[in-house]
Amino acid sequence: MDEPQPPSETGRIEAFSDGVIAIVITIMVLELKPPEHATLGGLLRLWPVFLAYALSFLQVGVYWVNHHRLLERATIATTGLQWANMLWLFSVSLIPFGTAWWGEHPADAIPTAAYMVTLLLPALVYPWLEVEALCNSPEDNSIQHRIQRRKITVSITLYASGIALAFVNSALSIACSFLVSVLWVLPGSRIDRWFAAKN
Amino acid sequence: MDEPQPPSETGRIEAFSDGVIAIVITIMVLELKPPEHATLGGLLRLWPVFLAYALSFLQVGVYWVNHHRLLERATIATTGLQWANMLWLFSVSLIPFGTAWWGEHPADAIPTAAYMVTLLLPALVYPWLEVEALCNSPEDNSIQHRIQRRKITVSITLYASGIALAFVNSALSIACSFLVSVLWVLPGSRIDRWFAAKN
Amino acid sequence: MDEPQPPSETGRIEAFSDGVIAIVITIMVLELKPPEHATLGGLLRLWPVFLAYALSFLQVGVYWVNHHRLLERATIATTGLQWANMLWLFSVSLIPFGTAWWGEHPADAIPTAAYMVTLLLPALVYPWLEVEALCNSPEDNSIQHRIQRRKITVSITLYASGIALAFVNSALSIACSFLVSVLWVLPGSRIDRWFAAKN
Amino acid sequence: MDEPQPPSETGRIEAFSDGVIAIVITIMVLELKPPEHATLGGLLRLWPVFLAYALSFLQVGVYWVNHHRLLERATIATTGLQWANMLWLFSVSLIPFGTAWWGEHPADAIPTAAYMVTLLLPALVYPWLEVEALCNSPEDNSIQHRIQRRKITVSITLYASGIALAFVNSALSIACSFLVSVLWVLPGSRIDRWFAAKN
Repeated sequence: MDEPQPPSETGRIEAFSDGVIAIVITIMVLELKPPEHATLGGLLRLWPVFLAYALSFLQVGVYWVNHHRLLERATIATTGLQWANMLWLFSVSLIPFGTAWWGEHPADAIPTAAYMVTLLLPALVYPWLEVEALCNSPEDNSIQHRIQRRKITVSITLYASGIALAFVNSALSIACSFLVSVLWVLPGSRIDRWFAAKN
Repeated sequence: MDEPQPPSETGRIEAFSDGVIAIVITIMVLELKPPEHATLGGLLRLWPVFLAYALSFLQVGVYWVNHHRLLERATIATTGLQWANMLWLFSVSLIPFGTAWWGEHPADAIPTAAYMVTLLLPALVYPWLEVEALCNSPEDNSIQHRIQRRKITVSITLYASGIALAFVNSALSIACSFLVSVLWVLPGSRIDRWFAAKN
Repeated sequence: MDEPQPPSETGRIEAFSDGVIAIVITIMVLELKPPEHATLGGLLRLWPVFLAYALSFLQVGVYWVNHHRLLERATIATTGLQWANMLWLFSVSLIPFGTAWWGEHPADAIPTAAYMVTLLLPALVYPWLEVEALCNSPEDNSIQHRIQRRKITVSITLYASGIALAFVNSALSIACSFLVSVLWVLPGSRIDRWFAAKN
Repeated sequence: MDEPQPPSETGRIEAFSDGVIAIVITIMVLELKPPEHATLGGLLRLWPVFLAYALSFLQVGVYWVNHHRLLERATIATTGLQWANMLWLFSVSLIPFGTAWWGEHPADAIPTAAYMVTLLLPALVYPWLEVEALCNSPEDNSIQHRIQRRKITVSITLYASGIALAFVNSALSIACSFLVSVLWVLPGSRIDRWFAAKN
């Protein structure tokens, strides 16, 4: 207590996170089991599992890009940051489970809702991660920062709507998660301008 | 012998360890196999496997944070450090095995005790790793260092108690391993002060 | 928009890509399931799966070496580069799927063609990745660059021929993909001179 | 040809190799499938699989430490080094296959011999990797270097003997591979002195 642990750099947190996210994004392909029969029909019947994989790859990709940008601004590897990051990685690591279940039952309400929950969890932990990462940085009141905050709120709302819509129509539910990706993949676009305008 | 191998930096030991720990922490999610039926009941029946995953993620997370801090203080990648680290990584790599077995038999004595043994092993190797990592550093008599040592001793005692308690009540046994995590996740807290006070 | 995100270095894109490619190249070995019987016959019957693994290892290896060289020349981690890279990694991550299916049905047209498609996809995405990586670099009109471009065109043509040949003879189809590897593994060789000569 | 590709640093080769070796060493634990029954007997029946895992972890560990030391001395990431390293990583990636087969049939000749072959292959590729890594370094005539060379020769001889002995007694065969590890884990020891003395 009197002797606080010396602050350390965030390099190894980034390296460890990259490792975990790289594994998470790649082990999902193990669910893409080759069809039993050597026919085009066998291949085409895999489309929901393939769609689930592509969608989750995109979602985890969005999370990685944002995590990358956030940790770049963090300067000190505090204990708080280490544990917020660990919880966030845990939430991301559940996405392959949700993906696998939904890929096998793409039209059923419970697996669709469960998949949306696994996509929502990292978004819920993200604000805490952000607070811990930036607690030693000067206050950031830039437009960019406010756009980011609004996008997170909209993302959480979209995922939550997706969970509710899973019980109505699973395609609509999945569309919500796809909208979240669109929101993040196109920065500097009309979407960002629209978020900035709502100042 | 006359020509000792030139000392090398510890960067690649850290990178390799990060890789192994990232894989260990992530492949455990492969045990979380999606339920066969698309029902909430099917999902809820998975709770022991899910609990085992969450608990082991936390334990490996604690080990990673401590390993991170320890290697930060190591300056030279000696042969001793390389092999102590290799043995430690081996012991950590057994945790997914213990987790998988316990997750399938959460109320049985032998799998619970085996799980506790896999959690205990890295703690038993850790002091050797510490000696090798710090053998080229100046003697460290700081309060922080003494707190760390006591926490390791208490952790080993808690895990050992968990092994014994597995034959009485598996929930009590698991509680012991959870207590170890609490001990390490909350630094700078009352727990540390309590350890320092026992000077 | 008025405040563009500060340019960041490409180090973490490389680290993340290395992680994904390392996992892609290694999880394919999981398809090499040990034969049931402890006989030489059991081992030898695995030859198509083994051949598929060796071939895909070579293909992913070629992609990694080229990716390595390309990102070395990229200076700024733009959003465009991050997403082009993400799409490229996605296309590479499908290779284990194609490999596994072809390894089980090495003489059938559809799995062979599907395998060729998974090998072709990263080559199709590569030119976009190249544009994004070099958009901040000075125009490159060197012979080396023109050789590279021609080799990519020839590779795409060879893979496409492989897809067509899969319906004639699967061995010829696989030979096309092997030719692509030969093209890339032997730089500074007669092959490069031949490409340069066609100026 | 006239414009050779600029030499690049070996950092990313090391990072990629670390990733592959970390995955190879860790996915072997996936073969350690938890016993079906929650009994000590079920656990103990796993001993050959466990032994195979521990032995292979040690072997890959030895290879990683040597690879680490070798690449530290390499200064330029030549094309030759990249491909020698890729072939070496390929040979290392076959060890989990050999381990899995032997772990299931520990007393049978063919799986034991196959396991020894997978352990031998990286040792056979290693001298080429060494030539490529050190081709830009000044000639090394140190005692250390000669010890290293003799140890590689002895290792290859031991593995080859192990392959032959597999058809006599599988325990003797495995003992050969264990001897190789002992040779490498204890540097600066009597073993090294003995190798140096044979000048």
